[in-house]
Amino acid sequence: MPKVVDHDQRRVELVEATWRIIARHGIEGATMRDIAAEAGFANGALKPYFPTKDDLLAFAFSHVFSQTGRRMTDATIGRSGLGALRAYCLEILPLDDIRVSEARIVIPFWQRALTDSTKAELHSSAMLLWRDTMCDHLREADTAGELRTTLPHEDLAGLLMNLVLGAQITAVLSPIENSPDRLVAQLDACIRLMAAGD
Amino acid sequence: MPKVVDHDQRRVELVEATWRIIARHGIEGATMRDIAAEAGFANGALKPYFPTKDDLLAFAFSHVFSQTGRRMTDATIGRSGLGALRAYCLEILPLDDIRVSEARIVIPFWQRALTDSTKAELHSSAMLLWRDTMCDHLREADTAGELRTTLPHEDLAGLLMNLVLGAQITAVLSPIENSPDRLVAQLDACIRLMAAGD
Repeated sequence: MPKVVDHDQRRVELVEATWRIIARHGIEGATMRDIAAEAGFANGALKPYFPTKDDLLAFAFSHVFSQTGRRMTDATIGRSGLGALRAYCLEILPLDDIRVSEARIVIPFWQRALTDSTKAELHSSAMLLWRDTMCDHLREADTAGELRTTLPHEDLAGLLMNLVLGAQITAVLSPIENSPDRLVAQLDACIRLMAAGD
Repeated sequence: MPKVVDHDQRRVELVEATWRIIARHGIEGATMRDIAAEAGFANGALKPYFPTKDDLLAFAFSHVFSQTGRRMTDATIGRSGLGALRAYCLEILPLDDIRVSEARIVIPFWQRALTDSTKAELHSSAMLLWRDTMCDHLREADTAGELRTTLPHEDLAGLLMNLVLGAQITAVLSPIENSPDRLVAQLDACIRLMAAGD
C-alpha cells in the first residue's frame, strides 16, 4: 500500500521548520532554498506546498493565529469575566521565545497585508474574532459586577486589542521597556483600571 | 554665482514625493525608478541621495518621526498633565490621511528593523523619547492631583505607547473597528480610567 502523505501536516512541519530561518534572517533574507534545506527538503520540493514565499507567509500567519487560538482556549477553560479576559490577552502577549518568534512572523505579514487584499482580509477577520471574544468576556465581567466602568465594551476591547498588537512590535524592537514583566504589568494596569471604574 | 543646492531640503522633498508611490504600491512594490519618476528626477539621479531603498526607508522613518515630533510640540504648547498627554498621543494616532500614510511607512520600517540593527536602534531611541515625554506628563498630572491611581507611571506610559503603536496597524488593517472616532474614544477611555484611579 502506498504511504499516505498528510499534506496539511507536512505544511505545518514546514512552517515549524522555517521558524528558525525566519527568526535568523527575517522573511526578506530567507530564501526558499534556505527554507527547503532547513526543513530537509530537496530544493524545489517546497513548490507544491508553497509556490511563493508570500504563500508561505500567509500560511505561517494562519498557523500562528490558530496556535494562539488553541492556547487561548486552553487558558480560558473554567474562567469567565476579567479572569478569562486576562488569560486570553496573556496568550497574545509575546512573553516567551515562541511568542517572540510569532511576532517576527506577524510583523512581515502586516507589511505584506498593506498591499495584498487577501492577506488584509485574513488579518481583519482573525482580529475580529479576538475582539469579539474580548467583548464577550467584558460582558460577563459586567454581569458579574466586576467592571465598574460605564465606558463602552467595544472601546475597552479596542484598547486591549491595540495594546496586545502594539506589544508585538515593542517586545521585539524595544525589549528593555517591554520585557515580559513590564508587558504583564501594563495588561494588569489596564484591567485593574477597568475593574475600578471611572 | 553657482546655485547652491540644499541637499537636506531635496532629501525631504524626495521623501514627500515618494509618499504617494509607497501608499499606492507599498515599499516592496515601489521601485527606485518609480520613485525617481514621481519626484521628477532622472533615473539614477536618486542614487547620490539614497543609494538603496533601505536608505530611503530609514530617512522616511526619521522624517515621519520628526514631523510627528513637531506636531506634538505645537499641540502641547500651553498644556500640561493629562491635557498635554492627550494632545501628545492624539498626534501619534493615525486619524487623518497624512497620518495613515505615515503608518504605511512605519509598518515596513518595523519589518526591516527586525533584521537591521541600525534601524532597530533608530526606532528604539525614537520610541524612548516619546515614552519619556509621556512619563513627564504623567508626573505633572500626578503633581496636579489629576491622576488618582498608584500604578507606576512607567507602566501607564508603556500601556499608552503600545496603544498608539498598535493603532498604526489597526487603523490601516482593521479600519472599521479603528476609525478615527473609535481610536480617540479608546485613548480617552484609557486616560479617563487613569484619572479615575484604581
